[in-house]
Amino acid sequence: MSTLTSRQVQLKSRPQGMPAEENFELVEVAVSAPGDGEVLVRNHYMTVDPYMRGRMYDRKSYVPPFQIGEALQGGAVGEVIESNDANFPVGSFVQSNNGWREAFVSSGEQLGAIDPSLAPLSTYLGVMGMPGMTAYVGLFRAASLKDGETVFVSGAAGAVGSLVGQIAKVKGCRVIGSAGSEDKVAHLVNELGFDHAFNYKNGELLQQLREGAPDGLDVYFDNVGAEHLEAAIYHMRPFGRIALCGAIATYNDTEPRPGPVNMSMAIGLGLRMQGFIVSHYNDSREAFVRDVSGWIKDGSVKYDETIHEGIEHAVDAFQGLFTGGNTGKMLVKLI
Amino acid sequence: MSTLTSRQVQLKSRPQGMPAEENFELVEVAVSAPGDGEVLVRNHYMTVDPYMRGRMYDRKSYVPPFQIGEALQGGAVGEVIESNDANFPVGSFVQSNNGWREAFVSSGEQLGAIDPSLAPLSTYLGVMGMPGMTAYVGLFRAASLKDGETVFVSGAAGAVGSLVGQIAKVKGCRVIGSAGSEDKVAHLVNELGFDHAFNYKNGELLQQLREGAPDGLDVYFDNVGAEHLEAAIYHMRPFGRIALCGAIATYNDTEPRPGPVNMSMAIGLGLRMQGFIVSHYNDSREAFVRDVSGWIKDGSVKYDETIHEGIEHAVDAFQGLFTGGNTGKMLVKLI
Repeated sequence: MSTLTSRQVQLKSRPQGMPAEENFELVEVAVSAPGDGEVLVRNHYMTVDPYMRGRMYDRKSYVPPFQIGEALQGGAVGEVIESNDANFPVGSFVQSNNGWREAFVSSGEQLGAIDPSLAPLSTYLGVMGMPGMTAYVGLFRAASLKDGETVFVSGAAGAVGSLVGQIAKVKGCRVIGSAGSEDKVAHLVNELGFDHAFNYKNGELLQQLREGAPDGLDVYFDNVGAEHLEAAIYHMRPFGRIALCGAIATYNDTEPRPGPVNMSMAIGLGLRMQGFIVSHYNDSREAFVRDVSGWIKDGSVKYDETIHEGIEHAVDAFQGLFTGGNTGKMLVKLI
Repeated sequence: MSTLTSRQVQLKSRPQGMPAEENFELVEVAVSAPGDGEVLVRNHYMTVDPYMRGRMYDRKSYVPPFQIGEALQGGAVGEVIESNDANFPVGSFVQSNNGWREAFVSSGEQLGAIDPSLAPLSTYLGVMGMPGMTAYVGLFRAASLKDGETVFVSGAAGAVGSLVGQIAKVKGCRVIGSAGSEDKVAHLVNELGFDHAFNYKNGELLQQLREGAPDGLDVYFDNVGAEHLEAAIYHMRPFGRIALCGAIATYNDTEPRPGPVNMSMAIGLGLRMQGFIVSHYNDSREAFVRDVSGWIKDGSVKYDETIHEGIEHAVDAFQGLFTGGNTGKMLVKLI
């Protein structure tokens, strides 16, 4: 039975605005041997996600805040290297919420078995995991997507957005996406089959939407909030639906940012805005796994990963989410 | 066959901000005899409604703008005094969109027969008419009201709001309302059976909501927009629904007003915001007439009217909508 050390990223102080290196600390801890019913897991990949910024505030939310002096949390996939739980034998692979660390001991109840023969290990943090299911339920449940509609997704090159666009294409929709660089825009159109994509940093949002969707939008999948939401409302067709999934433009604001000036347009147009997080629609999990694994296999869904190597670069990866540093899922490889 | 004169209110210039007397003109016109298939109607009541302010702007909307130099339009009820349409004999009563005038000639297709023995004539402009159906479909369709929930309605003493609260009470809900004077607040609690009402001009909105609904809101019926909407979002319970019906606080704004700063709270809470106008749910008309006429008869729904006398006071009545001049439906009696 080995005694292992694990490096972990702890919250040192609460960020003001954009998270800085000094808000975090990389600490080495000893990992004790697993007790009865416990397993020792060595993480292979961890994820960084925009929602984690919210947990760095000390406030009531749908997930409790991270605590100063403790390791951060988040999705991870790893291999069981010692086991006292027959459900998770040595050599099996698991997903957990024990990211931001290289290894950990856990009871089996906190783990989910995953099958790397079905899809690559890392995809369980992306297209086959939480971001993938967010795209899926956001389109079909929150936005009630119908075949052949016109869909706009912001943050379209991100882990959620890139799947939103591809699923909508599978459903015969016209798909418009916004992203923050020319490279990403080219990628969306040339690799992922978007009908139109634009760089929101170049030119006026509403004008871009009019070019990409001259007849207006049926569905807007909002990952960004703020100006993107306002522009989309101006361009919605009657009875359009907006899935409110994220507001990354505002997560580092230190002052409240005013909302759309055109909310009252929703009245005459009969617009629906539906906020959601993935866990609201857990009853769609089976359909999600079946559909998305099928679409990956038949080539209609592709996925991208931006991978940083080593836990010492986890904070860089996290910061990169807010500066446009990723195409597709942002991950950290730990082994 | 008579030749009749009719006074009518015309738009003289487009209001900037609050509509002023000088934006309107009272004009006397001759009404010719009805032709084939036409009838001559003398109006008994006309309605003034907040949505009419929107039609005074020269802009694209769900109803076309009023034209300068022409009579305004809006709901009216009247009596057929000459008829060349067997469906509408002399002495029958009709509703039309030909308000803001004392008499008019129309083809029968533009008219709806009404039965003043079922409910008083004036109620077809209020609780049995468009405002009543707005309350009904807003609660049951846009907000998916369930029995026993906690409901907040703004503009609660108005034509729509006062019915919203009473319908919710019929359904066993806890009902909180806001209004703009102490008299109205007393009326809501003492006459209409609201559980809690407050004067939004006295004290902080969110604090008032916390007092009236300590456990939060399941449904917010928004007639007001702006600060009311923001405060309600702060106080919504998970999976709450907001019916976006009106934004009277903003209708006279000359500059766009920022929206709620807390839109992103909708994500974690899974809130739904549904904009609507009454015509989106025309398929609920039968259920509305049946339910509301029944509730009036059994005394569970009461209604108020604020009645101005004479078309020369129609503009006063309209202005009064924006200064809190009405309890219940604001009407003008024309005969």
